[in-house]
Amino acid sequence: MNVTLLKPYHSIQELVRELVNGNRRALAKAISLVESTHPTSEPLRNELLESILPYTGNSMRIGITGSPGAGKSSLIEALGMRMIADGYRLAVLAVDPAATHSGGSILGDKLRMSGLSTRDQVFIRPSSNRGSQGVLALRTRESILVCEAAGYNVVMVETVGSGQADTDLDDVVDLVILACLPNAGDEIQGLKRGIMECADIIVVTKADLDQKATHHAAITLRSVLRLFRPKFPDWNTVVVVVSSLHGDGIETLWQECVRFFAPTRAKTRNCNRRFQLLRWFDQALRQQCITFLQQNNFLQDQIEKYRYAIEQDKLLPSHAAQKIVSHLCICRD
Amino acid sequence: MNVTLLKPYHSIQELVRELVNGNRRALAKAISLVESTHPTSEPLRNELLESILPYTGNSMRIGITGSPGAGKSSLIEALGMRMIADGYRLAVLAVDPAATHSGGSILGDKLRMSGLSTRDQVFIRPSSNRGSQGVLALRTRESILVCEAAGYNVVMVETVGSGQADTDLDDVVDLVILACLPNAGDEIQGLKRGIMECADIIVVTKADLDQKATHHAAITLRSVLRLFRPKFPDWNTVVVVVSSLHGDGIETLWQECVRFFAPTRAKTRNCNRRFQLLRWFDQALRQQCITFLQQNNFLQDQIEKYRYAIEQDKLLPSHAAQKIVSHLCICRD
Repeated sequence: MNVTLLKPYHSIQELVRELVNGNRRALAKAISLVESTHPTSEPLRNELLESILPYTGNSMRIGITGSPGAGKSSLIEALGMRMIADGYRLAVLAVDPAATHSGGSILGDKLRMSGLSTRDQVFIRPSSNRGSQGVLALRTRESILVCEAAGYNVVMVETVGSGQADTDLDDVVDLVILACLPNAGDEIQGLKRGIMECADIIVVTKADLDQKATHHAAITLRSVLRLFRPKFPDWNTVVVVVSSLHGDGIETLWQECVRFFAPTRAKTRNCNRRFQLLRWFDQALRQQCITFLQQNNFLQDQIEKYRYAIEQDKLLPSHAAQKIVSHLCICRD
Repeated sequence: MNVTLLKPYHSIQELVRELVNGNRRALAKAISLVESTHPTSEPLRNELLESILPYTGNSMRIGITGSPGAGKSSLIEALGMRMIADGYRLAVLAVDPAATHSGGSILGDKLRMSGLSTRDQVFIRPSSNRGSQGVLALRTRESILVCEAAGYNVVMVETVGSGQADTDLDDVVDLVILACLPNAGDEIQGLKRGIMECADIIVVTKADLDQKATHHAAITLRSVLRLFRPKFPDWNTVVVVVSSLHGDGIETLWQECVRFFAPTRAKTRNCNRRFQLLRWFDQALRQQCITFLQQNNFLQDQIEKYRYAIEQDKLLPSHAAQKIVSHLCICRD
């Protein structure tokens, strides 16, 4: 095992002990380990995650999505301040699917959430992940578990709304909040496919900018929502109008969150989490099979060659896949 | 090779020759071979499909989806009659994702499309496929190729609208037509997520039933469509009102189809087909890896065991997947 990845801790046991005791440095270290792409990190990561499993599952997992500029950070700042006033401990994971987060963005996030970033009960972490979207969902799931083990009972995942990333978000959190600007005509048109169907709460942000537009946006959204099937049998997507600047609507939004996480809805939430776990297994299995194929130079050359032949209409995709898979065999130990 | 699957033909070469010459019996045989789940059919199917590849790709691939009772069959009947009047040869593949098609449904389809079913230029085939949805898409793709090799220059794929099946349809055909009943309030609410986003043409059917409701449905649909991003850079989804009973709107629908397949849009269509092929390869690779794992009793037992542990929160899905994939190895010949 490559213990230099653990420094200054000497073992996973020590790291887990510190993590569970609420040591922020241990938390940051544990997330780095989860996000590490270093090939030797895998056994360490597995040991870490299996060790913390008993301490996980006890948070409200909330996803916040929306176009760039839709006011997600201000919303998290305002909603987060309301949560910690009620005694909650909050972790914020900012995931950027475009992977444009540079080192400087940590400062960026602290600036964007200036109230939260100075609080002891709050942990903010931008993701420096540059993997594919599937990998990103995987790492986010694991980071949520780490935050839960560290005693955070609300974990907010912030992501830029883009088709696949939102379906992924839906597979990772309990509650999906979509942030929309009030200029419904332009903004809602700009929403990518699939986003609105995943949302449990839609927030029209920056209501202070234009009251009439905000009102119109809320009406449009509510009428469009009626066209979709509800995601859960006991929850209808709600539209909340918020001004993060003046704090208007934040109380309503928080009460909707509380209602979503009400004990009476526990059965639905547990079912959803179980489905998420089994989908995660299915996805991980598919993803790791593909990774296995790609890591073999011989097969990778074959795949490239076949892909070219497919594009030239000289080979059928299903036949090419058969040829690749015919090279697989199983060793039992 | 199991040549009994080919009867009365003696070889794939003979079957292909008859198929390309337009022999309907050879066409039915070839599709049966494509749909066969018999384990020995695979090499025959591969040989068939590779042999016909040079004769494929020259049809308008049109998908028709919509809820049960939305009037898909009447629409195909009316639109199909218009097409053959222009000299087109039409193949209809009726795919039922619920796999409820019994032997009797062949008679059912012939009754539902009574005009088309008596024409020499038309071939109607209900799918007796009972596989998973991914497999279904695979077989449909291959059946389309067979119909094209038999000289049909329009292939219509009819499917019951249900979330996944529609995304699949979008991956299989060039043009997706969604059939909706005019009672917009109920019908559009009943549409599953993702259907509307895939549609290139939305047809409000049975316009003869209620003029006011039809008008209202068309307006609602057009306003909702403005909320979605266009699927293609050079095509905006259109809404067409049709009465298959009286033939109203069928000419408009046909002209929209012709416009969709205009030579000026060839580049977009070719790009879309290339993307479809590469996605097909990717899906086939994932699917066949999973099938390979599932066909191994030892691994199947492991997967079941791990799934149980995952549901009990005792094992992480990603770790379980690693354990499974660690049994894979590669033999180069």
